[in-house]
Amino acid sequence: MDNLIEPRLLKGFRDSLPKTELEKAKLIRTLEETFQLFGFVPIDTPALEYSEILLGKAGGETEKQVYRFFDHGKRDVALRYDLTVPFARFMASHRSELYLPFKRYHIAKVWRGENTQRGRYREFFQCDFDIVGIDSASADFEILLLMVASMQALGIDNFLVRFSHRGVFNRLLTKLGLTARSVEILRIVDKILKIGERQVEKQLSSLAGKEEIRSILNFITPGKDSAETLKNIVKESGEDNEDTQRLADITSLVQEVSLDETILLDPSITRGLDYYTGAVFETFLLDQPDLGSVCSGGRYNNLTSLYTKERMPGVGSSIGLDRLHTAIRQMESDEHEITKAVLVLCLTEEYLGYYHRLAGSFREAGFQSEVFPEKRKLARQFQYAEMKGIPFAVICGEEERRRDRITLKDLRNRESYEELTVEQTIQELRKLLPDS
Amino acid sequence: MDNLIEPRLLKGFRDSLPKTELEKAKLIRTLEETFQLFGFVPIDTPALEYSEILLGKAGGETEKQVYRFFDHGKRDVALRYDLTVPFARFMASHRSELYLPFKRYHIAKVWRGENTQRGRYREFFQCDFDIVGIDSASADFEILLLMVASMQALGIDNFLVRFSHRGVFNRLLTKLGLTARSVEILRIVDKILKIGERQVEKQLSSLAGKEEIRSILNFITPGKDSAETLKNIVKESGEDNEDTQRLADITSLVQEVSLDETILLDPSITRGLDYYTGAVFETFLLDQPDLGSVCSGGRYNNLTSLYTKERMPGVGSSIGLDRLHTAIRQMESDEHEITKAVLVLCLTEEYLGYYHRLAGSFREAGFQSEVFPEKRKLARQFQYAEMKGIPFAVICGEEERRRDRITLKDLRNRESYEELTVEQTIQELRKLLPDS
Repeated sequence: MDNLIEPRLLKGFRDSLPKTELEKAKLIRTLEETFQLFGFVPIDTPALEYSEILLGKAGGETEKQVYRFFDHGKRDVALRYDLTVPFARFMASHRSELYLPFKRYHIAKVWRGENTQRGRYREFFQCDFDIVGIDSASADFEILLLMVASMQALGIDNFLVRFSHRGVFNRLLTKLGLTARSVEILRIVDKILKIGERQVEKQLSSLAGKEEIRSILNFITPGKDSAETLKNIVKESGEDNEDTQRLADITSLVQEVSLDETILLDPSITRGLDYYTGAVFETFLLDQPDLGSVCSGGRYNNLTSLYTKERMPGVGSSIGLDRLHTAIRQMESDEHEITKAVLVLCLTEEYLGYYHRLAGSFREAGFQSEVFPEKRKLARQFQYAEMKGIPFAVICGEEERRRDRITLKDLRNRESYEELTVEQTIQELRKLLPDS
Repeated sequence: MDNLIEPRLLKGFRDSLPKTELEKAKLIRTLEETFQLFGFVPIDTPALEYSEILLGKAGGETEKQVYRFFDHGKRDVALRYDLTVPFARFMASHRSELYLPFKRYHIAKVWRGENTQRGRYREFFQCDFDIVGIDSASADFEILLLMVASMQALGIDNFLVRFSHRGVFNRLLTKLGLTARSVEILRIVDKILKIGERQVEKQLSSLAGKEEIRSILNFITPGKDSAETLKNIVKESGEDNEDTQRLADITSLVQEVSLDETILLDPSITRGLDYYTGAVFETFLLDQPDLGSVCSGGRYNNLTSLYTKERMPGVGSSIGLDRLHTAIRQMESDEHEITKAVLVLCLTEEYLGYYHRLAGSFREAGFQSEVFPEKRKLARQFQYAEMKGIPFAVICGEEERRRDRITLKDLRNRESYEELTVEQTIQELRKLLPDS
């Protein structure tokens, strides 16, 4: 027993303590309920898959970050690094058991051996929701609607969802003869909210001429509303086409449900290097602009192309759970939620059976309740309640037990309510916690 | 695109389809709520840890099953194979941030490269709840109470929780001079419910003499109630001692909360090769005896001995989620739960905005609702609803739209309700789904 092992964690990994776990669970539960209201259903896939499956399409950067190894059977396996690739494999595996359009959500851990110096974690949650098997404006719009509903369900009011279309940007670049440099240009334009128009102009100057840059900047500058922006996009990118038509359809659906102040057409949204081919989406919290997008996504041409010849178009979005958790924690730091909990103190171990019966009565009335499991100094038992955030204690010593009465103590203000029956205690608790 | 990758899974791994995921989520949510009612709080730990941490105490068999490899930084890492070892490391890491007794639950995936021929999976959920930092009868009892409450919360009525104490069995073996063979003997006795007394007697015959075997069989045979069983245990194992005293304390607490028909003292319970040192627990569903124990646990001396010198006694139990899920599915196969869901059909894409507004109204009234995202034959749209288990469709064509009326169709019996306003539709839905 002398050779103790140091209880250390791997760099980039972390434990989750009860407070964080409870907050996260609440956040996830709210999102799940919202997804289900829109007819989305949950799936899960294994954490571990054949490397061939997970890395089929990945480039060098991704491949370097993936946890990959040979298992007991000398199989080349890897831990999933996102939820999109496993979803593609899932759709190819279960095509015959599923109806289309298939609307799924998936909230689960993924692993990436990223450089932790940038404050990144190597294990984190992703939360994806997608509609696959259909290419329609209504599906694009439904994802936007669900992005809005998710923010609202989490109590976030001051946010904007921005959308655009990869195709129209590509058409502009084709018109300007800049297709060969589209990757670099998209990457620069994508940063406009962070670095500003001036910087974008400067960084573009090595890739395009003055005229072209002006055209790009005109294109990405939103008008006073989505309708004006749309007109401008059509003008700059050349003419009406199926991509601008899709933007027009989405814009009109947004107007019809009166969300045109929350969901905005913004042609500067490009989603950088992502694999999107159609509409693209981002979500910004206006009170915390530095956070970046907390929910992003878009439309892709063909999810399952690596595994099957059947074409599977889709559209979806992904919530940055950790980012959102941080944001919500900041917002809620003032409000202090009171746990509906009661600690039954242990004054004598002879009464433990009675104490457990008391705790059972409080639980039946909807309160969390537990018995301190052995006789200790009262100060020690109160300290336990305080550290655990339990606002109420119930005390019953010999004298009271004989009269079948208990004392309720509100630990928030040290006030005592004496000589109560169990029923009176529950009534008193309900008065003191108006929500219960 | 011609070189398609076969979308196969690793042996022993499985996808979870929506029906299963929804059932599992419901099961887990019910358990979480029950744990919280008893003052237990959730934690999480990384899936990946240093092999040294996870394998510190493990024997050869465990070590062979663990997914272990070198990561990018040449660190020797492994995927957790249970939730107990990470919990021990967690307690050592966070001792200063936590109050004792600490009551936690942890529901998460673990991975073992087990032989899949025995029907085992290599990725599965564990669900553990423990009270650490205290060695008291009240804590042992609270775990038993929570085992009962968990079963009841899941709608399981016909079950028995059995408990005993490792120490008293060891005392008996010491008295009989059989300590050296205790591992083999415990393993045989543990199988008594499966193989019967006669087989146990036979298998023991190579390890002990006739007298000793009779004494063991006397010891493990329960009396007509826990009190009689307790008397018998004291007699066979020699005399009153702290272990029989603990059993007496637990038995009396069980009686005081009137659970003596649900929680039974049964000295044949030994938990085979597990690391328990005190009380041990098992749970059997009486309607499905072949399933084995669905919730087992016990008391251990010192959880954190590998990592710290501070002694950390604990008691806990673990629910076999997959096993329980199977059991519940069997029980509920008759009841068919109706989803509160409405599909808004798409008769013309011009009305998509209106259809989405309708779906929004149904969601506000508490129904899951979605719009079929493009115009297709009605038969195709009805088929979608049927495959997804959506019981209601809402239909609105040109004529009805002009009069601001809609048709509600109950897809369970093909009955139609025509010329309804949105409010009337919601009222009708509430009538048709009495719970909503």
